[in-house]
Amino acid sequence: MGDLSRFSLNQATTKRWPTADTIAGCAAAGVSGIGLWRDQVAECGLERTAALVREAGLAVTSLCRGGFFTAEGWREDNLRAIDEAAALGAPVLVLVSGGLPDGSRDVDGARRRVADAIAELVPHARAVGVRLAIEPLHPMFASDRCVIATLGNALDIAEQHPADVVGVAVDTYHLWWDDGVWAQLARAGAGGRIACFQVADWITPLPEGVLLGRGLPGAGCVELRRFREAVDAAGYTGPVEVEVFHEDVWSRPGIEVLQETMRRYVEHVA
Amino acid sequence: MGDLSRFSLNQATTKRWPTADTIAGCAAAGVSGIGLWRDQVAECGLERTAALVREAGLAVTSLCRGGFFTAEGWREDNLRAIDEAAALGAPVLVLVSGGLPDGSRDVDGARRRVADAIAELVPHARAVGVRLAIEPLHPMFASDRCVIATLGNALDIAEQHPADVVGVAVDTYHLWWDDGVWAQLARAGAGGRIACFQVADWITPLPEGVLLGRGLPGAGCVELRRFREAVDAAGYTGPVEVEVFHEDVWSRPGIEVLQETMRRYVEHVA
Repeated sequence: MGDLSRFSLNQATTKRWPTADTIAGCAAAGVSGIGLWRDQVAECGLERTAALVREAGLAVTSLCRGGFFTAEGWREDNLRAIDEAAALGAPVLVLVSGGLPDGSRDVDGARRRVADAIAELVPHARAVGVRLAIEPLHPMFASDRCVIATLGNALDIAEQHPADVVGVAVDTYHLWWDDGVWAQLARAGAGGRIACFQVADWITPLPEGVLLGRGLPGAGCVELRRFREAVDAAGYTGPVEVEVFHEDVWSRPGIEVLQETMRRYVEHVA
Repeated sequence: MGDLSRFSLNQATTKRWPTADTIAGCAAAGVSGIGLWRDQVAECGLERTAALVREAGLAVTSLCRGGFFTAEGWREDNLRAIDEAAALGAPVLVLVSGGLPDGSRDVDGARRRVADAIAELVPHARAVGVRLAIEPLHPMFASDRCVIATLGNALDIAEQHPADVVGVAVDTYHLWWDDGVWAQLARAGAGGRIACFQVADWITPLPEGVLLGRGLPGAGCVELRRFREAVDAAGYTGPVEVEVFHEDVWSRPGIEVLQETMRRYVEHVA
């Protein structure tokens, strides 16, 4: 079909496909990597999921997600997430940092809180060998999901720590609009900070709530191959996860979505 | 009620209030400035609107909008918009630059096209004494409304021309999420580039299509007073337009919305 050697299915793309079936489906399709989500792993069972991916010979390319540092209980939840990543053999835990606390307008304060929280997590992440990947989300999520809205801001925080412990997650959906992104990708690469690379396409109109509006590769306007070449040029040689949230995609059979995702990856990304 | 000396009602906030009524309502409420929209002006008639604002003693603080440079017919439409601004006595024409052409993924090319188009308009704008204000829109509009998504990008283009002919429009709704915005506001001020300052608040969840999701001042999470103080500190002494698009606001009587907008402006912006 083409070069799928770096392709990884982020299981959010096939959200309603049970984890055990997703793992079996990926293995049968010759996919070598899978990105897992904590809620989906919990449904299947942590130990069981770890055993299934091992037996299937799949690499877990990332675990989504820790973060939400402005919420109560963030510390315990994130320590648990790091342990889950370690148990699954995921080299990377993706961090979605959280929005403004209820009623707050202090976006600077929220960003400081994110930086402080990550600093608190670094010793445990290092001890168990899990790399933290700060993910900048599209600015339309800045108030309610992630105050870190640019790759530059994510790097500002990551660079306070060793690169093998804290990096960034580069997601085309969140970053494509930024005229400064190519320079920031080069900066990220020079510092060895690209811990995770995820691909989704931008389509409009956005749905209410804007969370489930992503397109499969090639369905939208993002220069996906340019992004992949830019992260390559920046020295990243790791997996390329396709991660799409869309009700229309979720409502289809998982195996069918996987096959289409692989075809589209080859055509638009690889 | 407080200091309303710089307050201007952008008539998009009261979209269903006929222009003649809006002008009369503003004058009766002691408002000194109004921001006009071309479609609403056309409904009332250009000459008639110009006469009404003159007779009411209102300052037209801006005309919205020119732009959409990636669409067919952009040149004639924008030359006409400049003439309309001049006829209305509007010192500023706000430019919403347009998104990607249908089927295109060439965002760099679209940005070049915007810069080229503005360069073509400069002689006519200068000749009739209308200043062009490039407005960066929130990145969620980058594909379908405005490829200029950051204040920095708008300044990159504006700075290719004299400051009295091409400036930028600073709108809190579009820029609040950007950790780099304070530095860019200082840059804009140092160059005398702030041609228009508009205020709206950020509220969630965003509605389908995301266009009509803005909040009246104080309804959301934007540090509006911090923005006003930052543009002041950057040397801007001009009007402060409140410009809100929201179905709930539009469905209310215009005079009621104006009164609430003035109260909220004093409490959250002035």
